[in-house]
Amino acid sequence: MAEQKATNVYWHDGEVSRADRNRLLGQKGATIWFTGLSGSGKSTVAVALEKVLAERGHLAYRLDGDNIRLGINKNLGFSAEDRTENIRRIGEIAKLFVDTGVLALSSFVSPYRADRDMVRKLHEDAGMEFIEVYVNVPLAEAEKRDPKGLYKKARAGEIKNFTGIDDPYEAPDNPELILHSHQMSLAEEVDALLTLLEERGILGAGIPVAEAV
Amino acid sequence: MAEQKATNVYWHDGEVSRADRNRLLGQKGATIWFTGLSGSGKSTVAVALEKVLAERGHLAYRLDGDNIRLGINKNLGFSAEDRTENIRRIGEIAKLFVDTGVLALSSFVSPYRADRDMVRKLHEDAGMEFIEVYVNVPLAEAEKRDPKGLYKKARAGEIKNFTGIDDPYEAPDNPELILHSHQMSLAEEVDALLTLLEERGILGAGIPVAEAV
Repeated sequence: MAEQKATNVYWHDGEVSRADRNRLLGQKGATIWFTGLSGSGKSTVAVALEKVLAERGHLAYRLDGDNIRLGINKNLGFSAEDRTENIRRIGEIAKLFVDTGVLALSSFVSPYRADRDMVRKLHEDAGMEFIEVYVNVPLAEAEKRDPKGLYKKARAGEIKNFTGIDDPYEAPDNPELILHSHQMSLAEEVDALLTLLEERGILGAGIPVAEAV
Repeated sequence: MAEQKATNVYWHDGEVSRADRNRLLGQKGATIWFTGLSGSGKSTVAVALEKVLAERGHLAYRLDGDNIRLGINKNLGFSAEDRTENIRRIGEIAKLFVDTGVLALSSFVSPYRADRDMVRKLHEDAGMEFIEVYVNVPLAEAEKRDPKGLYKKARAGEIKNFTGIDDPYEAPDNPELILHSHQMSLAEEVDALLTLLEERGILGAGIPVAEAV
């Protein structure tokens, strides 16, 4: 071994822990798992929540179709097996974020109860926070919104196995929160989420924010 | 829509961006990709770097066999195809961390040049920092250390396709940094890494740290 030349480098024994990272960030890592029909408003409320969290110095990251289906899960299709593997991988990635201290905002239809419960168990077995948020609107409302024109295609038979049309949506039995997005304003939805996160001790002081980000 | 009832909730248009998260954390997300033989000291230096970064208020997260092979990649073995898929998924996860603003410290043998170059391209195509660190020790030295007893098993034929014994290690052509861990102290290695990260503008002020974490 060479002699000690480097200066200004110090460390003590032990690895940086999850608790250390939570302390650094002023928050407790957690997965907030939005589930609901296509068009129910999952992404809309996730985007709004992320914004308010950032303004308060909290680090969140949204997992959604754009960064998952086009990235790590690009080799998965929509068979039952692939759908389950899709959700499993998202759950494992969310766990890594929680371990880092980040608030993972997951926004996928995730229609099957067994898949969501698998992800919940992955978290709970690791002592991690998992908050299931059911964005609940009537199918007729989601179909009326149809922001991506997917219901129209499903009704025309151009998309098969579309959740709500010819594939089931299994509503959560016991979610941590239900958002009736057709009866609430976006501000009310975000407020309900913040209240829940505060009640569960997830939001500490955050990172000092010099100016609005 | 219901009337506005919630208070204390404000946001403005636009989503929280990668730049916003970097600003919040006082750093620029980046992947530091350690590659080298088993026993070369990849994890040792990653752990030491992580510690110094945390003391300076920087958020890093180590991706290694413990949290990847036992988690998201538990359904992958060691065939050539699975090894490539293993590295691809790790690369995609690292990208998500970089997008979050985190310093992803990836510590895998990752013996094939084509796999590492694929991950580099994934990052560069997304305008993300990718820093390849070749932890370079002679095979004889790595085998002498043999911290997990794997070389012994490979020599005895109990492990097949072991890198350095009966499977090749393809050294990087042009890594951002080479660490000769058999000739450098750990402090020197960490110092070389910090210097590189500072030169590349990755380390900003970090998060204010009230006390050592």
